[in-house]
Amino acid sequence: MIYFTPGPSQLYPTVKKHVQTALKDDIPSLSHRSEAFREIVKDTYQSLRKLLKIPPSYEIFFLSSATEAMERIIQNCAGDKTAHFVNGAFSKRFFQTARDLKKSPELFETTIGTGWDLPTISIPKHTELVCFTHTETSGGTALPLGEIYEMMRKTPDTLVALDVVSSIPYVMIDFKQVDLVFFSVQKGFGLPAGLGVLIAGPQALEKAKKLKNEGFNVGSYHQFETMTQQAKKFQTIETPNVLGIYLLNAVLHDMLNASIQTIRKQTEQKATLLYNFFDEHPQMQPFVTDTKYRSQTVIVIQTPQGSASVVAKLKQAGLVVGSGYGTLKERQIRIANFPAHSISDMKRLVSQISKTYR
Amino acid sequence: MIYFTPGPSQLYPTVKKHVQTALKDDIPSLSHRSEAFREIVKDTYQSLRKLLKIPPSYEIFFLSSATEAMERIIQNCAGDKTAHFVNGAFSKRFFQTARDLKKSPELFETTIGTGWDLPTISIPKHTELVCFTHTETSGGTALPLGEIYEMMRKTPDTLVALDVVSSIPYVMIDFKQVDLVFFSVQKGFGLPAGLGVLIAGPQALEKAKKLKNEGFNVGSYHQFETMTQQAKKFQTIETPNVLGIYLLNAVLHDMLNASIQTIRKQTEQKATLLYNFFDEHPQMQPFVTDTKYRSQTVIVIQTPQGSASVVAKLKQAGLVVGSGYGTLKERQIRIANFPAHSISDMKRLVSQISKTYR
Repeated sequence: MIYFTPGPSQLYPTVKKHVQTALKDDIPSLSHRSEAFREIVKDTYQSLRKLLKIPPSYEIFFLSSATEAMERIIQNCAGDKTAHFVNGAFSKRFFQTARDLKKSPELFETTIGTGWDLPTISIPKHTELVCFTHTETSGGTALPLGEIYEMMRKTPDTLVALDVVSSIPYVMIDFKQVDLVFFSVQKGFGLPAGLGVLIAGPQALEKAKKLKNEGFNVGSYHQFETMTQQAKKFQTIETPNVLGIYLLNAVLHDMLNASIQTIRKQTEQKATLLYNFFDEHPQMQPFVTDTKYRSQTVIVIQTPQGSASVVAKLKQAGLVVGSGYGTLKERQIRIANFPAHSISDMKRLVSQISKTYR
Repeated sequence: MIYFTPGPSQLYPTVKKHVQTALKDDIPSLSHRSEAFREIVKDTYQSLRKLLKIPPSYEIFFLSSATEAMERIIQNCAGDKTAHFVNGAFSKRFFQTARDLKKSPELFETTIGTGWDLPTISIPKHTELVCFTHTETSGGTALPLGEIYEMMRKTPDTLVALDVVSSIPYVMIDFKQVDLVFFSVQKGFGLPAGLGVLIAGPQALEKAKKLKNEGFNVGSYHQFETMTQQAKKFQTIETPNVLGIYLLNAVLHDMLNASIQTIRKQTEQKATLLYNFFDEHPQMQPFVTDTKYRSQTVIVIQTPQGSASVVAKLKQAGLVVGSGYGTLKERQIRIANFPAHSISDMKRLVSQISKTYR
């Protein structure tokens, strides 16, 4: 089976081998207070910084999921006023998180599958934090980062949070333009689920300190301040997903060896292959019509004949694609285009669809 | 190496085999919305209910750690007044969690390594939630559950939370007497870290609903109400540690086959072996002197000659024990006695210590 599901997805080709090494070396039995574990964390930080060009002043925190990252960001970086650009289920969850935590979130909503002309938009004064979902996994859109940067330059004191769950490591982030970046590892890194990563810049860390000092409820064990103290010692507060961190580091090394430029180029080649194929297909069309907003990593396709039979037929051929999200479940399929998917995997998928649906 | 560290610890003997099966069957690539994943969750619930005798009216939630469980319990089950029985670092963290979340926790503190005569204690009226750490991993104490039940019968409307992180599955819980029970899997279940389990009874679920309706901040994605809705569908809100849940279920099946009675009997045999040995040892004595409070699963031993050399010498012999916790790090060692540790492992440890320190 090849898994093209948008997460959990196909494992990166080296993962099974790394699991064997981890078991041989007793990684799951290592104490999270041991020197050996601290070395793993230290090396993972270095690999992440190198691959993603994270500046030294940005802290890296290990969480359990991207969903947790949304909660920790709202708790630690907003006393009251947030703004959310919502065009699907995951950006909506970020907005809902702010409501759940009793903040006053402002909603900028547009139809799923579309985006905004961001530079023309101004957020309300006194907004503390703006939340963007770079690639909205439910609709297959991606926001042009340059437009986010341009829009946010008008309000330099407002923090910017960026969900890159489904676009990392393909997406190239200019960390100086954003304060908070987060993802989980079961998508672009091709790893087993159960680990989230949150990267927080100096302005975000400062804000968290300020809110804490002012008596806000900034959560308990995952307050930015306590996480920073632990991160500086290459530790975590709780016993973390030790094996998950070890595997992330192993895959980061593989990606550094393969070179991120190559990974990005191949991602675009595969995306072009898919979009070109579906743009010409008589029955199945890309859901996102404006090419400006098309995600390179999650490709959503309309299936007017219903998605269930498409998913089932491809599965018979050993190819697992995702169905649509939520209310679109029956009318769309979703295809992940992650580094774990080779060009020949994609060609095989296209050829199979082409044979079955003419 | 045999790991006697109090968590992460020795893997349960079948875990490596289960990891191979999981990789072969593409478990890490399964969508957490798929029928196959729901079947895993359903079966894990059944196995947990069977092994631990969890009543049907109690819900089971998957979290990322026991530390997270503390946070979710305080958020969902206490508007303001909690009480905490603190005799070490982990019970202290539960207390601190309530403070961090802006509650008014009452502190019942005693010296590490000792306990309370619980039936003589009365908690303040209007206490909403009392938090007990059954086995305090930092000091090697265990509280007699019968005394907790007896004490709490005086205030039937007060919720009882029980941390069984280091004593499950050895500890036999009468769920009718407690409202919240939680643990992580890297201790008694001998699994890789990164998964917590929280079991919540009807009174706790009712309280969470009430607090939410009254407008309390009960957290975001891990509110009891939303987790209950998902649990009833054998799902989770976020993408969970899918592999961790699969492995937990596999080990639960192994333990059901081995029989929990046998596991409990062997745990007591191994604990007796250790305590008898150290009670007679000329240099190293058990830290907990009152046998009533001695944990059967985490045995803390005084090392007047310093712990570092003891840990190092045993490691040379392939036996990894934990050092003391926090300020006691240098003066104690800690030995886990989990189901993953066989009687011959324990005999080997005792024999090695006996050879090295006479």
